[in-house]
Amino acid sequence: MTQVNQWMIDPDDTVMLLIDHQSGLFQLVKDIELPVLRSNVIALAKVARLAKVPTFTTASVPDGPNGPLIPEIHEQNPEAVYIPRTGQVNAWDNLPWVEAIENTGRKTLLIAGTLTSVCMAFPAISAVAAGYKVFCIIDASGNHSQMATDSTLARIAQAGAIPIDTFAVLGELMSTWNRPDARDFAAVMVDLVPHYRALMESYDKAQSVQRDGHETELDKFEAGAGEEVIHAR
Amino acid sequence: MTQVNQWMIDPDDTVMLLIDHQSGLFQLVKDIELPVLRSNVIALAKVARLAKVPTFTTASVPDGPNGPLIPEIHEQNPEAVYIPRTGQVNAWDNLPWVEAIENTGRKTLLIAGTLTSVCMAFPAISAVAAGYKVFCIIDASGNHSQMATDSTLARIAQAGAIPIDTFAVLGELMSTWNRPDARDFAAVMVDLVPHYRALMESYDKAQSVQRDGHETELDKFEAGAGEEVIHAR
Amino acid sequence: MTQVNQWMIDPDDTVMLLIDHQSGLFQLVKDIELPVLRSNVIALAKVARLAKVPTFTTASVPDGPNGPLIPEIHEQNPEAVYIPRTGQVNAWDNLPWVEAIENTGRKTLLIAGTLTSVCMAFPAISAVAAGYKVFCIIDASGNHSQMATDSTLARIAQAGAIPIDTFAVLGELMSTWNRPDARDFAAVMVDLVPHYRALMESYDKAQSVQRDGHETELDKFEAGAGEEVIHAR
Amino acid sequence: MTQVNQWMIDPDDTVMLLIDHQSGLFQLVKDIELPVLRSNVIALAKVARLAKVPTFTTASVPDGPNGPLIPEIHEQNPEAVYIPRTGQVNAWDNLPWVEAIENTGRKTLLIAGTLTSVCMAFPAISAVAAGYKVFCIIDASGNHSQMATDSTLARIAQAGAIPIDTFAVLGELMSTWNRPDARDFAAVMVDLVPHYRALMESYDKAQSVQRDGHETELDKFEAGAGEEVIHAR
Amino acid sequence: MTQVNQWMIDPDDTVMLLIDHQSGLFQLVKDIELPVLRSNVIALAKVARLAKVPTFTTASVPDGPNGPLIPEIHEQNPEAVYIPRTGQVNAWDNLPWVEAIENTGRKTLLIAGTLTSVCMAFPAISAVAAGYKVFCIIDASGNHSQMATDSTLARIAQAGAIPIDTFAVLGELMSTWNRPDARDFAAVMVDLVPHYRALMESYDKAQSVQRDGHETELDKFEAGAGEEVIHAR
Amino acid sequence: MTQVNQWMIDPDDTVMLLIDHQSGLFQLVKDIELPVLRSNVIALAKVARLAKVPTFTTASVPDGPNGPLIPEIHEQNPEAVYIPRTGQVNAWDNLPWVEAIENTGRKTLLIAGTLTSVCMAFPAISAVAAGYKVFCIIDASGNHSQMATDSTLARIAQAGAIPIDTFAVLGELMSTWNRPDARDFAAVMVDLVPHYRALMESYDKAQSVQRDGHETELDKFEAGAGEEVIHAR
Amino acid sequence: MTQVNQWMIDPDDTVMLLIDHQSGLFQLVKDIELPVLRSNVIALAKVARLAKVPTFTTASVPDGPNGPLIPEIHEQNPEAVYIPRTGQVNAWDNLPWVEAIENTGRKTLLIAGTLTSVCMAFPAISAVAAGYKVFCIIDASGNHSQMATDSTLARIAQAGAIPIDTFAVLGELMSTWNRPDARDFAAVMVDLVPHYRALMESYDKAQSVQRDGHETELDKFEAGAGEEVIHAR
Amino acid sequence: MTQVNQWMIDPDDTVMLLIDHQSGLFQLVKDIELPVLRSNVIALAKVARLAKVPTFTTASVPDGPNGPLIPEIHEQNPEAVYIPRTGQVNAWDNLPWVEAIENTGRKTLLIAGTLTSVCMAFPAISAVAAGYKVFCIIDASGNHSQMATDSTLARIAQAGAIPIDTFAVLGELMSTWNRPDARDFAAVMVDLVPHYRALMESYDKAQSVQRDGHETELDKFEAGAGEEVIHAR
Repeated sequence: MTQVNQWMIDPDDTVMLLIDHQSGLFQLVKDIELPVLRSNVIALAKVARLAKVPTFTTASVPDGPNGPLIPEIHEQNPEAVYIPRTGQVNAWDNLPWVEAIENTGRKTLLIAGTLTSVCMAFPAISAVAAGYKVFCIIDASGNHSQMATDSTLARIAQAGAIPIDTFAVLGELMSTWNRPDARDFAAVMVDLVPHYRALMESYDKAQSVQRDGHETELDKFEAGAGEEVIHAR
Repeated sequence: MTQVNQWMIDPDDTVMLLIDHQSGLFQLVKDIELPVLRSNVIALAKVARLAKVPTFTTASVPDGPNGPLIPEIHEQNPEAVYIPRTGQVNAWDNLPWVEAIENTGRKTLLIAGTLTSVCMAFPAISAVAAGYKVFCIIDASGNHSQMATDSTLARIAQAGAIPIDTFAVLGELMSTWNRPDARDFAAVMVDLVPHYRALMESYDKAQSVQRDGHETELDKFEAGAGEEVIHAR
Repeated sequence: MTQVNQWMIDPDDTVMLLIDHQSGLFQLVKDIELPVLRSNVIALAKVARLAKVPTFTTASVPDGPNGPLIPEIHEQNPEAVYIPRTGQVNAWDNLPWVEAIENTGRKTLLIAGTLTSVCMAFPAISAVAAGYKVFCIIDASGNHSQMATDSTLARIAQAGAIPIDTFAVLGELMSTWNRPDARDFAAVMVDLVPHYRALMESYDKAQSVQRDGHETELDKFEAGAGEEVIHAR
Repeated sequence: MTQVNQWMIDPDDTVMLLIDHQSGLFQLVKDIELPVLRSNVIALAKVARLAKVPTFTTASVPDGPNGPLIPEIHEQNPEAVYIPRTGQVNAWDNLPWVEAIENTGRKTLLIAGTLTSVCMAFPAISAVAAGYKVFCIIDASGNHSQMATDSTLARIAQAGAIPIDTFAVLGELMSTWNRPDARDFAAVMVDLVPHYRALMESYDKAQSVQRDGHETELDKFEAGAGEEVIHAR
Repeated sequence: MTQVNQWMIDPDDTVMLLIDHQSGLFQLVKDIELPVLRSNVIALAKVARLAKVPTFTTASVPDGPNGPLIPEIHEQNPEAVYIPRTGQVNAWDNLPWVEAIENTGRKTLLIAGTLTSVCMAFPAISAVAAGYKVFCIIDASGNHSQMATDSTLARIAQAGAIPIDTFAVLGELMSTWNRPDARDFAAVMVDLVPHYRALMESYDKAQSVQRDGHETELDKFEAGAGEEVIHAR
Repeated sequence: MTQVNQWMIDPDDTVMLLIDHQSGLFQLVKDIELPVLRSNVIALAKVARLAKVPTFTTASVPDGPNGPLIPEIHEQNPEAVYIPRTGQVNAWDNLPWVEAIENTGRKTLLIAGTLTSVCMAFPAISAVAAGYKVFCIIDASGNHSQMATDSTLARIAQAGAIPIDTFAVLGELMSTWNRPDARDFAAVMVDLVPHYRALMESYDKAQSVQRDGHETELDKFEAGAGEEVIHAR
Repeated sequence: MTQVNQWMIDPDDTVMLLIDHQSGLFQLVKDIELPVLRSNVIALAKVARLAKVPTFTTASVPDGPNGPLIPEIHEQNPEAVYIPRTGQVNAWDNLPWVEAIENTGRKTLLIAGTLTSVCMAFPAISAVAAGYKVFCIIDASGNHSQMATDSTLARIAQAGAIPIDTFAVLGELMSTWNRPDARDFAAVMVDLVPHYRALMESYDKAQSVQRDGHETELDKFEAGAGEEVIHAR
Repeated sequence: MTQVNQWMIDPDDTVMLLIDHQSGLFQLVKDIELPVLRSNVIALAKVARLAKVPTFTTASVPDGPNGPLIPEIHEQNPEAVYIPRTGQVNAWDNLPWVEAIENTGRKTLLIAGTLTSVCMAFPAISAVAAGYKVFCIIDASGNHSQMATDSTLARIAQAGAIPIDTFAVLGELMSTWNRPDARDFAAVMVDLVPHYRALMESYDKAQSVQRDGHETELDKFEAGAGEEVIHAR
């Protein structure tokens, strides 16, 4: 297996933190397409469950215009635990949040949050200062501008947190295709990457043609009347 | 109801043509994001069924690298009819295809196809010449470059076909929110437009707060110990 | 004064129609920056009042997620009349709307609406068919994608409606700087175009320097101690 | 409250420096939309006042084409102090400027300036060398090109200054929604982020519908004559 | 076969005109990536030969900085005829050029040229006036700016020429996959569209796996020593 | 010479109109880079003089923030005539302007203006209505947004004006390289297109190497001491 | 020769690692144009051979939808060695891979891989931890989004790997034009950079004109009949 | 004066190195507009002369397709010294180059070069290793792709060189507007930044209106005949 170093993820030492992925805040996001952001967050919820990574969620004033957490996170990962907070902008300022993380005994944190420069960045910087190895999942976080994301990326790297993308998180948690649950990981990837799905469909078709013969009979219908070749597929 | 003129769609006079939406061809698309294209095509399949618009599909050499039709079209619209063709690039050169359309007795065609400048444009131009009122659904078609789409848009308009987008097709087929199946149309829109979904979630939450009270109690946890406030949501 | 031809606006023959500029629908807009869209709509409301152009507004299902009309329209143009509709997607399908327009006796319509390809395009096409000269104000309308706007622009032009932008509407309604209310029109422009505001500020400063002398005394503070030169401005 | 570390902002140790936000220089800005830049600067002026952060402004040769400071800064933050300079490009070369900062006894500086690569970067680098903790607010600064901003971001980070965006500054200065003046902070945010304003309007409408009933009566006007349903809103 | 109308290409009535595709002029092109432009021109040269479409080339002052014709055109299509001109900007002003076209007896022209707004547009407009059906191949032409291409597209359409892209030309000249030389056309497409090549490679691999078994033996090397599994492929 | 048709320019029937190219208005331009716009306008001034095309300029309220005409136009084309106007937004509403054009007896107008959607579009539409053949030089005009330019392009084409770019104007006015003043036209192009200048420099160098031998002696300095090879070039 | 320091490449200490450049994975790439990526990878294969840099390739599950290695790598560099792996996501987890590298005795690694954030980044980070000097060739790697590439660039730099581009690799491996095989290196560059090829063609033409005289005789054909000047080139 | 620290430029300790700004190489540049690049290089040549900063140039194989140095550098800065090299890719490998720099006794280098990732980056990294303080002027260098520039920026920063832009170089070399030659520096800036020139023109006009009265007499020509108001300006 992977020899983990200080710049890599050890699944057994890891906690997933999904912060403020709320329907209202999503309307403010301009550095990533909304369906991509939503897919990335859902993929993280699924893969955390597969890899048995404890997952915590929270929301910022969900009663107001920020809106509710998107429901798919807890639907896809029923073991995830929601921890309300009492107004703190920085989730790390919420004692129950920090205690929940400490109670896992794990020291590597994967953090995604909306907005990136606030909800993701503040707890990430706090957690580094508290001694954690912290990964910031940039494309499962959304921000109000590309410029703000650029500066946040520089800021969190400067503070010692490690930037990463959703697909790389999947890769590090999976580690090898030579495992019993490889298909489950692949299923997450296919839902995550639309081109992957099209690739799979093309692949299956190419094999079925080799195995079962052609569907298209180019020489057959040439002079054919229309009515008999029309059929529901 | 809408007074339909020569530049508008009459649902009762309309046929939907979905041409060559195949997994392999999708890999060539560069003028629109693939998940957006796929969502748009699926929305058309659904709305055609809702509006009782006869729907025909076809594929270009699906046994080869072009790949199979994406399965969602016929899954979402089981009444859709697949009409194989015998090698013709222009679907309108396939006699059974033209006969199937003629048999409906309808004279308005909604055409989407991948690639836009070939699979959508050729039958559209042929159909105009054959006397049909033709709408080209630009964003349910995919093309190999933006430049090719720009010139295709000009070409089909010049030939007398009318460019349109998926959302506008939904609007014209729906016509009014004051109909029994308005919720079904709304469901198609929400699946189509990711920001719409987030909007709905926010709306429901705002109403539940008004109705059921706040979830966030800002004054409650201030000095609270962590353990009791953590709960699965 | 301007010799108006069939491709130009005669202010005295004109009605302004502002359709479905609602807070919820604004979240779906992706072809124009939201503050620019909002500024443009507000500028139209103001200039219609200045030019004594009757103005009608409407909203699509404002009780639901589409949200309320933005308040600035009626704040800036109290003479504007709101005409509710009973579910019609195309505002032109609402009898009171058409009657209100007919009652003005005017035959030129300036139409802006969100979403462009539906709320602006449908009534524009209907109005052309009903014999009106129609201008579609593209940048006071918002759409779900640039691609949809491109195809809508082609569609409405094909149907005989004339595309225009907000600034050009201001120019045609104003017609000359040699009028008593020229300053009021200029004030609308300055609020509309951020670079114009900065230009005006720079202009005024350049004149005040010429008139009142320099503020910066480059040779004065060279060796000066800090405390006396600090002052509230 | 937040446990501040070396990468975070302690409001009580902080000074805000707004440098050369002048109407003429604004015309040179190409890395950010002008209305966004202007809004960001105004938000900083407001939030500094709310958070009781001493604020200093200066201008570069305001008598010449660089133009005057935009007036909103001192309008929104009357306690801000303007410190003229005698030609220095780097504001830190102006003794009264440095003394004013020293006199506050605070050691954390929030710096924004136009142009970013000169007016923001030079004093930031000087201040780090002088022992201050320095935050560079990238999106309340404007630059002549994106390429120049990219290299400046790298340069100031290399020198030890911390890049940040306006929204993150608001978040760190606010720290919690559980404070008496939370509404004042929220008001600054709503003015800053146009999508936030639309979100609030939608939220209020959703609640009023729940509380007061529907405005749209879909079944009511169906056959209605136009005249009675038209009313000023 | 295709029922050709006035907006379509009849291969047997067609001439291909490739104008001023010169190495120096290529350095001025900014509306399309140079390798894409070059590939498109080469594909046209190949497909014209396949479809037996007479092809003429010319160059503008090739002795000067405009540079020589790219050599691939005549390499790939040895039957193409080069017609020098004596300084005319508009190739249609060169009598031998017009006579060569007239001598073919064909009335449909496919025109590509660099720069688009001059070398393609001028002869296209002249040819329409001379009674030809003219197609302008936008993406086998290169221009000095996108803005110039946008206005040229509008100009030539207005004058009655039909815009088209290279891939659509291939499709119309090929017409059907059910022809003896279909593989030759496919080979041109694969060289033209890089994603198509990758698609073909994936397709072949998928079939070989189905036919010949797996290459990857996931369970085999687990504990294997390195030396024996390394082999040249 | 060129057989001019209704879509082409006859230099002997042409007037050049350069409208409102003012320093202040230039600050509002966002659809084209300012140095490109400025170069294009200057090239038109030069080429009009070369081709003996009468040229008229005007300015919109040049005493105010709109600023003065850029000086290069009259510097490069001393025969150009400036016609002040008395506040009219549409230059065609200014009687002396129209009379000056009529007095030339020419019927083809080349129009460029800043802002495109107002200062270029209004007189263009008026002139078409007055019976002129009108070309709108899109890239020698500047506009406040790309969206406004897109809709203006559609609008003026719809009204019967012909869109064109600066380089195409040069090409049509020059017509052939086989004329005594070809070098003067070439000089205008080299100043206009930066890549052309670099091309010319490379060309001259390549010829001088062929003619005069190599400058670089790769085998000569290998072990050489630094001092003697350094020389001012 | 170059004095190599810790941030530079010593060709004699270097190994080239080309990881997972597979036809299927190429369909997922969105941060770089596919033909550019493919050209870059091929250029690396060629230049490694020229510079006698040992080269290893591997593939991720090539039997599945990821597809086969692109064939050009081993075609262009027959000495390259393919090392299969048994499912590991991180190639560094494959013992034979690491041993093959160790057996070269070299300590500098040039790594390119598709997808960048996984197949390139993971082994790069592992190799740095294992004591190697590692260069990550960003533009010979492809990724699923630009955002993911931005964060990966920051991540690998933070871990101590050095980012580089293909052209710079060529430059460092070549080191001087004053070497016997300089033409071979130049040939790789010309294939790599399309503008370079056009440059070479223009250069050769300019020299041939100087050497052999003009091809264009501007004064010769003026009144000429068409037939004799037409000749195959 | 400025207290220079390790991240800033001391003009008296500085040498300017302009490497390989050749007409042929300029054709390869894709990360910056060519006229902007050329203007930036010329501005550096001028400002180095003003600030008495010794300047050295060199060229890479200028006899071949790379082309000659652009002439403006030595025209604008006659004191600049050209140092030929004998084939080295990295200028630092050329002994006379290094000796020339050493002979100045200065330890701060400002480096710009085309292509950025080779001609600028290699000597910059070598010079840092040789103990110099090195600034890399990113926007006076040109590169073959944006992606290559992004990775080069990271690479040189990692090696200890400092990225900077041309305008910032001007600012640091000028240091204060309160110097006798301030106007000369300002002249360089105006030539460098097109918006600055327009700003100056507007400023001068605003002052002349204040000083000399209005040019536009809005009330004067209203009924005026055309002939007398037309005058050459």
